[in-house]
Amino acid sequence: MAIEGKDNPQTRPIRLGMVGGGKDAFIGAVHRIASRIDGRYELVAGALSSTPAKAEESGRALGLDEDRIYADFEAMAKREARLKNGIEAVAIVTPNHVHYPAAKAFLKRGIHVICDKPLTSTLADARKLAKAADNSDALFFLTHNYTGYPMVRQAREMVHNGDLGTIRVVQVEYPQDWLTVEQSNKQADWRTDPARSGAGGSTGDIGTHAYNLACFITGQSAESLAADLQSFVPGRQVDDNGHVMLRYASGARGMLWCSQVAPGNENNLKIRVYGDKGGLEWHQENPNYLHVTPFGEPKRIVTRGGAGMSDSIAPATRIPPGHPEGYLEGFANLYKDAADVIRAHQAGKEIASLVPGISDGLAGVQFVDACVRSSARNAAWVKLNG
Amino acid sequence: MAIEGKDNPQTRPIRLGMVGGGKDAFIGAVHRIASRIDGRYELVAGALSSTPAKAEESGRALGLDEDRIYADFEAMAKREARLKNGIEAVAIVTPNHVHYPAAKAFLKRGIHVICDKPLTSTLADARKLAKAADNSDALFFLTHNYTGYPMVRQAREMVHNGDLGTIRVVQVEYPQDWLTVEQSNKQADWRTDPARSGAGGSTGDIGTHAYNLACFITGQSAESLAADLQSFVPGRQVDDNGHVMLRYASGARGMLWCSQVAPGNENNLKIRVYGDKGGLEWHQENPNYLHVTPFGEPKRIVTRGGAGMSDSIAPATRIPPGHPEGYLEGFANLYKDAADVIRAHQAGKEIASLVPGISDGLAGVQFVDACVRSSARNAAWVKLNG
Amino acid sequence: MAIEGKDNPQTRPIRLGMVGGGKDAFIGAVHRIASRIDGRYELVAGALSSTPAKAEESGRALGLDEDRIYADFEAMAKREARLKNGIEAVAIVTPNHVHYPAAKAFLKRGIHVICDKPLTSTLADARKLAKAADNSDALFFLTHNYTGYPMVRQAREMVHNGDLGTIRVVQVEYPQDWLTVEQSNKQADWRTDPARSGAGGSTGDIGTHAYNLACFITGQSAESLAADLQSFVPGRQVDDNGHVMLRYASGARGMLWCSQVAPGNENNLKIRVYGDKGGLEWHQENPNYLHVTPFGEPKRIVTRGGAGMSDSIAPATRIPPGHPEGYLEGFANLYKDAADVIRAHQAGKEIASLVPGISDGLAGVQFVDACVRSSARNAAWVKLNG
Amino acid sequence: MAIEGKDNPQTRPIRLGMVGGGKDAFIGAVHRIASRIDGRYELVAGALSSTPAKAEESGRALGLDEDRIYADFEAMAKREARLKNGIEAVAIVTPNHVHYPAAKAFLKRGIHVICDKPLTSTLADARKLAKAADNSDALFFLTHNYTGYPMVRQAREMVHNGDLGTIRVVQVEYPQDWLTVEQSNKQADWRTDPARSGAGGSTGDIGTHAYNLACFITGQSAESLAADLQSFVPGRQVDDNGHVMLRYASGARGMLWCSQVAPGNENNLKIRVYGDKGGLEWHQENPNYLHVTPFGEPKRIVTRGGAGMSDSIAPATRIPPGHPEGYLEGFANLYKDAADVIRAHQAGKEIASLVPGISDGLAGVQFVDACVRSSARNAAWVKLNG
Repeated sequence: MAIEGKDNPQTRPIRLGMVGGGKDAFIGAVHRIASRIDGRYELVAGALSSTPAKAEESGRALGLDEDRIYADFEAMAKREARLKNGIEAVAIVTPNHVHYPAAKAFLKRGIHVICDKPLTSTLADARKLAKAADNSDALFFLTHNYTGYPMVRQAREMVHNGDLGTIRVVQVEYPQDWLTVEQSNKQADWRTDPARSGAGGSTGDIGTHAYNLACFITGQSAESLAADLQSFVPGRQVDDNGHVMLRYASGARGMLWCSQVAPGNENNLKIRVYGDKGGLEWHQENPNYLHVTPFGEPKRIVTRGGAGMSDSIAPATRIPPGHPEGYLEGFANLYKDAADVIRAHQAGKEIASLVPGISDGLAGVQFVDACVRSSARNAAWVKLNG
Repeated sequence: MAIEGKDNPQTRPIRLGMVGGGKDAFIGAVHRIASRIDGRYELVAGALSSTPAKAEESGRALGLDEDRIYADFEAMAKREARLKNGIEAVAIVTPNHVHYPAAKAFLKRGIHVICDKPLTSTLADARKLAKAADNSDALFFLTHNYTGYPMVRQAREMVHNGDLGTIRVVQVEYPQDWLTVEQSNKQADWRTDPARSGAGGSTGDIGTHAYNLACFITGQSAESLAADLQSFVPGRQVDDNGHVMLRYASGARGMLWCSQVAPGNENNLKIRVYGDKGGLEWHQENPNYLHVTPFGEPKRIVTRGGAGMSDSIAPATRIPPGHPEGYLEGFANLYKDAADVIRAHQAGKEIASLVPGISDGLAGVQFVDACVRSSARNAAWVKLNG
Repeated sequence: MAIEGKDNPQTRPIRLGMVGGGKDAFIGAVHRIASRIDGRYELVAGALSSTPAKAEESGRALGLDEDRIYADFEAMAKREARLKNGIEAVAIVTPNHVHYPAAKAFLKRGIHVICDKPLTSTLADARKLAKAADNSDALFFLTHNYTGYPMVRQAREMVHNGDLGTIRVVQVEYPQDWLTVEQSNKQADWRTDPARSGAGGSTGDIGTHAYNLACFITGQSAESLAADLQSFVPGRQVDDNGHVMLRYASGARGMLWCSQVAPGNENNLKIRVYGDKGGLEWHQENPNYLHVTPFGEPKRIVTRGGAGMSDSIAPATRIPPGHPEGYLEGFANLYKDAADVIRAHQAGKEIASLVPGISDGLAGVQFVDACVRSSARNAAWVKLNG
Repeated sequence: MAIEGKDNPQTRPIRLGMVGGGKDAFIGAVHRIASRIDGRYELVAGALSSTPAKAEESGRALGLDEDRIYADFEAMAKREARLKNGIEAVAIVTPNHVHYPAAKAFLKRGIHVICDKPLTSTLADARKLAKAADNSDALFFLTHNYTGYPMVRQAREMVHNGDLGTIRVVQVEYPQDWLTVEQSNKQADWRTDPARSGAGGSTGDIGTHAYNLACFITGQSAESLAADLQSFVPGRQVDDNGHVMLRYASGARGMLWCSQVAPGNENNLKIRVYGDKGGLEWHQENPNYLHVTPFGEPKRIVTRGGAGMSDSIAPATRIPPGHPEGYLEGFANLYKDAADVIRAHQAGKEIASLVPGISDGLAGVQFVDACVRSSARNAAWVKLNG
């Protein structure tokens, strides 16, 4: 266990703002906890809701100074950029359609952005945001948080090291069940509204996570896909279940299943990767274990912090093996790594990091776009960057 | 536990012959054990190998009378049909391409056939065999043995009873790893030879099991499919991995994955079925448990012989809950049920049974044919009976 | 897969009789299936019930010849011993208190005995039976069937090979739940009647299995134990839950828990063994897997028939890995091994075998006796052979 | 997800100090993360090591103000008690033998204490500390952190509600493997030194957690126990493995196993509770699931945040079901609950809380003392408060 090291200019807390994440939000609180776990951020400003009264109320509840509670992100970006001790980074945790305008507002003022996924609600916005990020000196991080799990990073390293040989097959799936019947609540409402969520429903909300995970672990991306999407719940305007076949650039083949109508699955993201020398398997719901089988040998259970884990993964864990870490700790790893990158950047250095960025975000929106295009053409194969 | 009841004309052992299953065979021994477990069959004749010397040696080893060891199935069919106490049924356990001629030889002589899967190596043969079976008074059983597992039957009954509501999604997969690298042995040789196995490799050998299982449990069949098949091992002439998207006649959608190159999977058949009221999940490698989740309630583990299992399933189990049954007992259920049907048939009665038959076999070959056709057309959707 | 080999005098079926196991019995049918699975036995005679009408009815149902259906075991022993093709072996599957007189009747006539556990209902009987077995030329086998599981034998071999180093700790438990409330049926009645079951309830019925398993795997036996036994169900005359601490002769220490009042446990026998170099774990309810952890390395899952299993275990398996075997196949291994020993014995040879015998049976009854004595003395330490 | 609510006097962060937890410590960092997760504490002072240079270095690293980095806890207690904005609470995370003097120093000055377990290294100290706590107006919390897991609280509530009926059997175990061989490092050194750790090794370090968990869930405490303790590693001065039989006041019986020499067990705390109406099971290494079996019904898997969980547990979870929480979140629940109690206390109110306190701490040390006494008397039954 490391000491948090706040006396070091490199490691003192980063001043953080937040867009979205007010009362009744889910992911905003996750970001706040993730930012707090390692003591590397201090939340000092917020435009926490598009409803001014709620923004006000939420900001006070969070203990923000009155003058740093903003009614909208534009005002926040402008003023914070001018403050002597203005925010250094902003977390954007709004519904998808706000990601682009909000991120742009901060990027153009040199404030680093930590943005929730998917990148944007439309491919056009994604391309514009990619351009904005490229043109900005500020950094852009995308919270495909499942990449923060230590055993996911271990899997990635094993594939990279060739432990599995040439990758042939990638099976990834992300079933949930909370939209099995029609729901009416804040979380369900915007996620099933194409105007706010984008053209993809389950594909955008969770399919992008699954696709990102496959790419992260294998180091590959898909060239083309064939998708059969469904909206099982009557009246639903976006897909709630998607079946996708994928062809990776390297010759590997894969399937991807995302669903929000699969009773008995809470958040059952799972990935399996097979090469000509071995296979591995990881389950998000029991994330401290990685199952690895070198072909012809018994299956091994590599544990977070335990025997078999690479030394390089150690900084992504906080407690000894057998003391389970979970979703929040994986999420916090992205915040911690981003903090390192931000401090290095401020010191004029570029350091490598595993945190997904703008290109991963663009790839995710291309994935959703390709799924929707393919499905509209009766599951024809389409290019992801087509 | 029932007494085996051999004093009853209905339950005395059936005289059984076998085609194939000699030395070094795998599935022949499985059929023999399955036929013995409940004492409902007595093996009395065999054409156990296409190599006469091996047929002879194997017949003797099995303790068959000299004059009932045959060099070929045709000779066996002819003579046994004339014997006063000739065989009443024959188990056909040869490589796929022999199923059709062998089955025909017995069917036309009124000898009941218990045939291993897939039905035949070609669709043309399958159709001819279907006609032969229809024209025969003899019965035809196909050993899609996974339907014999009690918890599979429980799943089927729950779907049938509407416990899951309207079925929306069916996920079935059957990964193995034994063909990850090139193999040279009796089992691998014929299975990777299109002339003996058929045009499908993994699709024929195990994909048919997976497809049959999905149909058996849901009571539905697929209307069309889109398949992306691969032969990953250099030089392999048949698929060793297949990704399939399915559209069921009822509107349900599904995926099917079969693979023989997925290290860490021994015989990892798994099915998950989701409806608008609940979901269920079953794993062949730990087959005594069925996971059932009524939407909005905790997951329940229904156990073979235990609480939650329907009374109607009880005859398919032999021992109390917690005393695991396995592959052979599931297989034996097909033999036991077939014995009931045969004895009833001999008494002039038709009784219902869950044992797959000729139409299931034809459906399986149509599935393989459709996969091959679709894959050749870049995974276009094709009809199964197209 | 081997051919069953009945043409060999060494492997032709053994003529078997049965004492007990009539209608409504549980374990008799298990013995019959186990004897049939490998085709090494033919059931030809029986004294299947102490109720003559039921013995008659059961014998007929099983298809025995009329003149080989006996009203009592003594008559059967006498007559079969004189028949030219009389039984070569007998399976004794009665309630415990009949084991001794029945076994004695056959042993003294040179008929081999395959007896269910525990050996007897009293320690006095056990000692007399041990003497009878020692004085007989006939063989005595005790069906502590859990030793027949391939992965149990694998565990034993790994301990024997020193893979775990010096054994320090043995944790074994056998919880069930079927006697959680008062039951009234054939199985429950005699098992909770000290006159038929013996002084131990759960300790005798399942504790002996657990203790035997610990001894079988570790190659050690306990020197002393301290037991705290309970009868939780009002009016129950024997223990239905037992907590035992054990001191093995080698210096290892252990605990044993047996219970028939633990809801949620069907037949949940589990063993864990720890040495200074590694640990292993096996669960009866999912018996095809053995978890092995060399200290400081990742846990490995050794599978029946799969990588990591010793070649020496192969004869105890019938089907490839991933095709689960269960309770009946493990039980059948004892019958198969006993058949080998019997045929060798008939040929004048003694061969080694893993099938438990008379000394294991005596040890089991000593275990029960010690538990009861210790518990009566407020869980004082007592010697097992005290 | 709630907003953290810092604008409320009831919920603004509590000023926290820390004793111990400097560089190389394990549990200190855990306490700091736990205190940060919900934003209810601010660490402002520390006496982080008994080595002044390390205390200094660690305090700076943590970003403490220079004048609130103390060389010893006595100095910190004195000065902080006099400061206008001195600490309101202190976390004591030293080796065991320092708990008593440190806690006393703060309690007598009215500073609330959050102390790691076990309460003290000796029973005499425990009694003195209990008296000190009773005599102080300040609050005392003991971090038996496993009680903070939502599913543990769910288990407790179900037992309390009578879902399991009258409790009969409690099986709790806590095996680890890190001390399988001799270790020499900060963590191992003090834990195997009776002067710092106390007379119990594994019994004190983890056995107390197991015993506390059993008491917490069942609402009962043990009246007497019989313990057989071992020191398997040569030269080790404290037990590294312990077998304990327990008699609870209510008539329930139980076993407890703690071990630090069981290879393959990282931190494998597990509890099973059985009553006359049902049973439950919980595993710390996969803590989001509680297995519950009403007798005669299928096992149900109650999930954190999911169906089957009581509403009363909801405040102890932060994220939706399927998003796993772990050790740190469970630990954080104690900190969060303690914050509520502290703020209420400051407002003159007493509120109920599930956080263990001084009496639980005393019970834990009595447990260790009883184990050591019993084992010294050849596992005789001893009273816990004897």
